[in-house]
Amino acid sequence: MDGVGSAARSAAALMAAAPTAAKNQALLSLARRLRASGPALKAANAKDLAAAKAAGLKGPLLDRLKLTPAAIATVAEGCEQIAAMPDPVGEISGLKRRPSGISVGQMRVPLGVFGMIYESRPNVTIEAASLAIKSGNACILRGGSEALHSNLALAELVAAALKEAGLPPTGVQLINTTDRAAVGMLITAPQHVDVIIPRGGKSLIERISAEAKVPVIKHLDGNCHTYVDAEVDFGLALTVVINAKTQKYSPCNATESLLVHAESAPDFLPHIGAVLAEKGVELRGCARTLALLGPLPGAKVTAATEADWSEEYLAPIISIKVVDSLNEAIAHINHYGSHHTDAILTTNHAHAMRFLREVDSASVMVNTSTRFADGFEYGLGAEIGISTDKLHARGPVGLEGLTSLKWVVLGQGEVRA
Amino acid sequence: MDGVGSAARSAAALMAAAPTAAKNQALLSLARRLRASGPALKAANAKDLAAAKAAGLKGPLLDRLKLTPAAIATVAEGCEQIAAMPDPVGEISGLKRRPSGISVGQMRVPLGVFGMIYESRPNVTIEAASLAIKSGNACILRGGSEALHSNLALAELVAAALKEAGLPPTGVQLINTTDRAAVGMLITAPQHVDVIIPRGGKSLIERISAEAKVPVIKHLDGNCHTYVDAEVDFGLALTVVINAKTQKYSPCNATESLLVHAESAPDFLPHIGAVLAEKGVELRGCARTLALLGPLPGAKVTAATEADWSEEYLAPIISIKVVDSLNEAIAHINHYGSHHTDAILTTNHAHAMRFLREVDSASVMVNTSTRFADGFEYGLGAEIGISTDKLHARGPVGLEGLTSLKWVVLGQGEVRA
Repeated sequence: MDGVGSAARSAAALMAAAPTAAKNQALLSLARRLRASGPALKAANAKDLAAAKAAGLKGPLLDRLKLTPAAIATVAEGCEQIAAMPDPVGEISGLKRRPSGISVGQMRVPLGVFGMIYESRPNVTIEAASLAIKSGNACILRGGSEALHSNLALAELVAAALKEAGLPPTGVQLINTTDRAAVGMLITAPQHVDVIIPRGGKSLIERISAEAKVPVIKHLDGNCHTYVDAEVDFGLALTVVINAKTQKYSPCNATESLLVHAESAPDFLPHIGAVLAEKGVELRGCARTLALLGPLPGAKVTAATEADWSEEYLAPIISIKVVDSLNEAIAHINHYGSHHTDAILTTNHAHAMRFLREVDSASVMVNTSTRFADGFEYGLGAEIGISTDKLHARGPVGLEGLTSLKWVVLGQGEVRA
Repeated sequence: MDGVGSAARSAAALMAAAPTAAKNQALLSLARRLRASGPALKAANAKDLAAAKAAGLKGPLLDRLKLTPAAIATVAEGCEQIAAMPDPVGEISGLKRRPSGISVGQMRVPLGVFGMIYESRPNVTIEAASLAIKSGNACILRGGSEALHSNLALAELVAAALKEAGLPPTGVQLINTTDRAAVGMLITAPQHVDVIIPRGGKSLIERISAEAKVPVIKHLDGNCHTYVDAEVDFGLALTVVINAKTQKYSPCNATESLLVHAESAPDFLPHIGAVLAEKGVELRGCARTLALLGPLPGAKVTAATEADWSEEYLAPIISIKVVDSLNEAIAHINHYGSHHTDAILTTNHAHAMRFLREVDSASVMVNTSTRFADGFEYGLGAEIGISTDKLHARGPVGLEGLTSLKWVVLGQGEVRA
């Protein structure tokens, strides 16, 4: 691990200084190699799949492990998209002349080395590698042990692409062991690693945050809210809430909790309740919600407990609460939410502006679906993760989140008086 | 402490939503109150000074504790300057329409609650309070125990100013105890505190970083370098190096290490050596430096040890090394430096640009003195500290460093396909 770490640190200097053309060449070469390596990747992936099936892995976990031709085409296309994006590194902004004569501005630079710890999803190997290359960082990847053969085959392609472009093959390193101690070393080596990005379940991220001696860009849970205001277009609200809750149940940006203003509740709740129930969504309501929902034959409707307000279901379940004011809605979200993504549906401009300003979440939305909280949808090209931290990067983290700003001072011999 | 923490969290919501006019009113009221409270502040400060003298405190430590009329005038003026600056909170940048129809941008918002831990310098109480007010944050201040009476008197003025402006007096709280356990509680309470900013010696900051469960904006040491290139204006280099090293010895942005290209060394070293020696600066040189310095009667000239290259002297001592190339200079700085502030003196544009890009420090400078690394000199109005971290804020941290960006999404009923 120490060898991997110091190799990453050395590579980082070369990655940071790499010309844009070389980084793009590496990304395009990687896309080509991915498309040309179908059989080899399939063979490596088959080993992982066989072992996983033998170990009893099933359902979505097994699906995520699969490196299908479609998945390979998607990550290859992702590399090309990132190659087409502007290079964030070296941009100087805000250069201003000061009374002393010096000019002061900020230059965007790579963070250095990031460590990525993720589950058994081989596509993340390519996503992380391609973002590292374009952002001028070196990275150390630690994927789930079930995907090791697939990841090794992919990492080989990355190294070859880097080499072809004249960049250090150690710019992207995959930890070639399933030993858990390697994670412990990675997260406690500030001399080698500048930031750790964990992607996985809440327990993994909490454990890493607790033990890390290196800064962590965390994504904890996504308990997202949609608030239906007193002044609202009911048609819009129905469409948006249905999308936010039911378009997909497993993503972190799906709405888990619906807040409805008391003035809208008598009309809105029976309608939304009926549509959600028809889609098989379980409704967990406050007492006023239950009274207003009306009869929903065959639907699962229960009383929400205190724990429901904090829950990230990632499932066809929604909690519903009637609130008496915008103030109450904002206070509820700031108290029970996870500071991920929250939306207001309203026709009132002042309410929209207050919600945007006062809800303390990484993404705040007006009149649209929380499902839009995503690096691609935001125009970042790709995302390395979604941060629920307040410092550095909030929400979807793309190329910019993997950089920081240093101060640049240009003088002509000025001295401090 | 739990009461202080939850009061800060409640106040933070009000501070974040506060109108710019109210925040400015509080700052101007604070300036007025500071100017009108000379006798009361003097009396409180006298208690601290008497106790400190009785405890044997001397020299600079005692000087820093003094709340002189001049010091009061300076912090009052600082409040007025911060009132005159633009409000960073609420600014929306980069709002762009996406193919889906939504508009996506970023809004600048306060971090929430910051905890400030500092030594016995009462002026820091007002600097931190004024930056908190303008940036819309609540803060919890823990000053050095020797300054407790002075700090309590100052905190009373801050609370009155907040109240006068219709803001929560608990927006700025001073911990009214010298119990060290309070620090431990402050740095391990993520439910109450979003970020800790320690200001003090390296050992204090290392201890806080090691024990904190809350993110820390750290300022470790300032081992700053000035590199004199092969192509350089000797007159400019002499002026700048003398200023960078000798204008003041104690600040973190003073140059501690001088690197000289082998082509410049034979001419430059005897000159700079003579001037530094005349000013009483001890010279610790590499073997080539010692050979080139020539006779310096009465000067203290010694061989630099490996430890010298990493040392932050904060004293009239400088380490000097001859390097054979720009590459060697950059590698030396990135290896031994503290990523604080480093400067190149050169007439060569390509060398200047490579230095700016490749030296991994919070501030990188061309042809000027490292002593300029300062919030006021950079135009930030004030600084809460200087960060040597890579994430979030690097270098001088002003109002912007106390904020973060959240994503703002504006729709008209768009849903995710």
